Amino acid sequence: MNPIKIGLLGLGTVGGGTLKVLQRNQEEIRRRAGRGIEVAMIAVRNLDRARAIVQEAGATVPVVNDPFAIVDSPEIDIVVELIGGYDLTRELVLRAIANGKHVVTANKALLAVHGNEIFKAAQDKGVMVAFEAAVAGGIPIIKALREGLTANRIEWIAGIINGTTNFILTEMRDKGLDFDTVLKEAQRLGYAEADPTFDIEGFDAAHKLTLMSAIAFGVPVQFERAYVEGITKLEAVDIRYAEELGYRIKLLGITRRAEAGIELRVHPTLVPAKRLIANVEGAMNAVVVNGDAVGPTLYYGKGAGAEPTASAVVADLVDVTRLHTADPEHRVPHLAFQPDALSDTPVLPIDEVRSSYYLRMRVADETGVLADITRILAEGGISIDAMLQKESREGEPQTDIIMLSHVTVEKRVNAAIAAIEALPTVLSKVTRIRMEELN
Amino acid sequence: MNPIKIGLLGLGTVGGGTLKVLQRNQEEIRRRAGRGIEVAMIAVRNLDRARAIVQEAGATVPVVNDPFAIVDSPEIDIVVELIGGYDLTRELVLRAIANGKHVVTANKALLAVHGNEIFKAAQDKGVMVAFEAAVAGGIPIIKALREGLTANRIEWIAGIINGTTNFILTEMRDKGLDFDTVLKEAQRLGYAEADPTFDIEGFDAAHKLTLMSAIAFGVPVQFERAYVEGITKLEAVDIRYAEELGYRIKLLGITRRAEAGIELRVHPTLVPAKRLIANVEGAMNAVVVNGDAVGPTLYYGKGAGAEPTASAVVADLVDVTRLHTADPEHRVPHLAFQPDALSDTPVLPIDEVRSSYYLRMRVADETGVLADITRILAEGGISIDAMLQKESREGEPQTDIIMLSHVTVEKRVNAAIAAIEALPTVLSKVTRIRMEELN
Repeated sequence: MNPIKIGLLGLGTVGGGTLKVLQRNQEEIRRRAGRGIEVAMIAVRNLDRARAIVQEAGATVPVVNDPFAIVDSPEIDIVVELIGGYDLTRELVLRAIANGKHVVTANKALLAVHGNEIFKAAQDKGVMVAFEAAVAGGIPIIKALREGLTANRIEWIAGIINGTTNFILTEMRDKGLDFDTVLKEAQRLGYAEADPTFDIEGFDAAHKLTLMSAIAFGVPVQFERAYVEGITKLEAVDIRYAEELGYRIKLLGITRRAEAGIELRVHPTLVPAKRLIANVEGAMNAVVVNGDAVGPTLYYGKGAGAEPTASAVVADLVDVTRLHTADPEHRVPHLAFQPDALSDTPVLPIDEVRSSYYLRMRVADETGVLADITRILAEGGISIDAMLQKESREGEPQTDIIMLSHVTVEKRVNAAIAAIEALPTVLSKVTRIRMEELN
Repeated sequence: MNPIKIGLLGLGTVGGGTLKVLQRNQEEIRRRAGRGIEVAMIAVRNLDRARAIVQEAGATVPVVNDPFAIVDSPEIDIVVELIGGYDLTRELVLRAIANGKHVVTANKALLAVHGNEIFKAAQDKGVMVAFEAAVAGGIPIIKALREGLTANRIEWIAGIINGTTNFILTEMRDKGLDFDTVLKEAQRLGYAEADPTFDIEGFDAAHKLTLMSAIAFGVPVQFERAYVEGITKLEAVDIRYAEELGYRIKLLGITRRAEAGIELRVHPTLVPAKRLIANVEGAMNAVVVNGDAVGPTLYYGKGAGAEPTASAVVADLVDVTRLHTADPEHRVPHLAFQPDALSDTPVLPIDEVRSSYYLRMRVADETGVLADITRILAEGGISIDAMLQKESREGEPQTDIIMLSHVTVEKRVNAAIAAIEALPTVLSKVTRIRMEELN
């Protein structure tokens, strides 16, 4: 059989990796797919640089400047979008679909924001939009969620899905350093970008979480409803106290099916140190999925980088190659559930989320302080699971109190914090970090 | 669309779990599959017990005594084989295939031994034989290997794929107890069977490893070539010494693409304590897959039990339901590679395997002993990575020496061990345990 022809939009890190993997493993891939996968055209901004990369990969592929030349080319079966960003890519992907081409993309931002429109267009046209590479790089988590766990009512997902922030948190803990210091180091080493906002403020993780949530619960993508909190305000002292209490702090994307709706939130989270996911270090990614039949399962691997991401892109290419002439009913629905069977379960506002909490406050070292605080918590219906009070230093009439709460509703904790901060004996703002047992 | 009709052969732990999950999550499953999955007939030995289970699950399904009634029924689309064992099941599965029915099975033993015959028959007849539940219970590892990592040249797989032995090893380590004591406890708790041979001697793990090896490397299943060593001879002292050196001992199934062939082996293995897989405790399973593009990935979850295994059975049912009327070319090949593209790379005999080694010996506490031993190792081309010599106890003229070697060929180690054991100052047999860095 003739090879299937693909067009690459973009030849950056992931594009270059994809070209290289397709070239190096072409025989292995053909033995699996039953058919070769040929890069027939590449569109880039910088033609000279691209030609050098193509040559280095040992390939011979025409390189063009205009991405629409690929999207409109009758020669191309699958468009691989690796440009990134929303505007141009939305136009390119929708035009590829309108032209009856399948699309493979690593663009989590595009799908988290415009996914409903794109999947609808693909559905109507009978083409596939595959996006394994958009979440957790080389880890086949989309496939696991969408196909591997179809027996389950998924209860929750919790994932380390941003390598930059996990690298920073690992360094902060290992070296006892503050966020700013470690961020600079991460930038120097290439683990963080010059403008790291997207990563460190949690948006990248929220894009990925949005996609997983839709697939897990059969709801539309709704990034605009996600609660997003990054790691920029995290202090070394809380990492240390958490450690003393048997916890690690990770930036987790969490989505859960609660009674009143779906939780969709990204924030720093205390996790028991003995959990496998608490031991995921450096730039690695891991996702825990809890299904009602299977229980907790975990998927771990490299969440970024040229070849790990290319691994996911090419896996999608093989899937699409296998099914591209098949009746659409034989294909897996884009969001795991049949398009006419999506649910309108709402995403809960963060106030309504249920979690445990780590609370740290600086208090005057006087009689009755603790009584006042615990009374406020009790009146708020918040029960305490563990407490740590540090001895005040010689001559210092202040001390840190750390409390771990049982599971409660966030708005109750916020109300209690306001009352606690109003106490004259409480000398600082209350630092509040969410905590999950994940069992 | 009418529901697809399945027939269950067997209603034991997994069969009961499958019935329950299909019943409880029928709506969720239909929303995903686009079609209901209906248990239309069940064959069992004990009719009364089965009827009680069916009633308890809230289902109404005819129960029969003769499994061939299902396999031959024109009403049944998919046969789910959950009986276990080789002989009857081989006949049933082949007859189901001959009748043009798809098969879903959890039977690792059957496929590891008769897989080539069964997959060939299915291929010729154009039906699917799905077996996600045969390896690592609810973890979708077959799907990850067969579809999620198709871009990769798989380099090696290492897995904790038997919960019973991992439970025993965890207890031996936590409590410092010997194998026999812990086995009895495991039997009492239901983690080990009355006749635990299959688990503790490594055969169950070897069946599962054989299937993963075939899928990873595109070779036929060849269980008869697997090297199988269980945990029955493992001593608490070695678990302790390994710990001191920074390692844990796990029963691993390892398959690796080496230069001269494929390694296929199950045995106790030292693994660095900091690896995620070293921290997989109790009856849990985990598999590490290393691909050339993606790097190391890990998959973790429950490897046995009614509902975790049912999770895999039902995922297969959804896959088969989706593709059962599709042209066979749209389906994933049984062993990941196209049947005409299998390779005849041989499985290496254990003597030719490359590994690191943990060696423990009891020696006389005399000058020159260590010099003799290290000379023998050096002459055998074996280099030492770490050594631990325990101080001899007061008045005891003997001591334990533990050595960790660098990677070498097994036959060299065996020759060196024979020479070491011949030394008059070496007072015991040399305990040899293989060791893998898994990075």
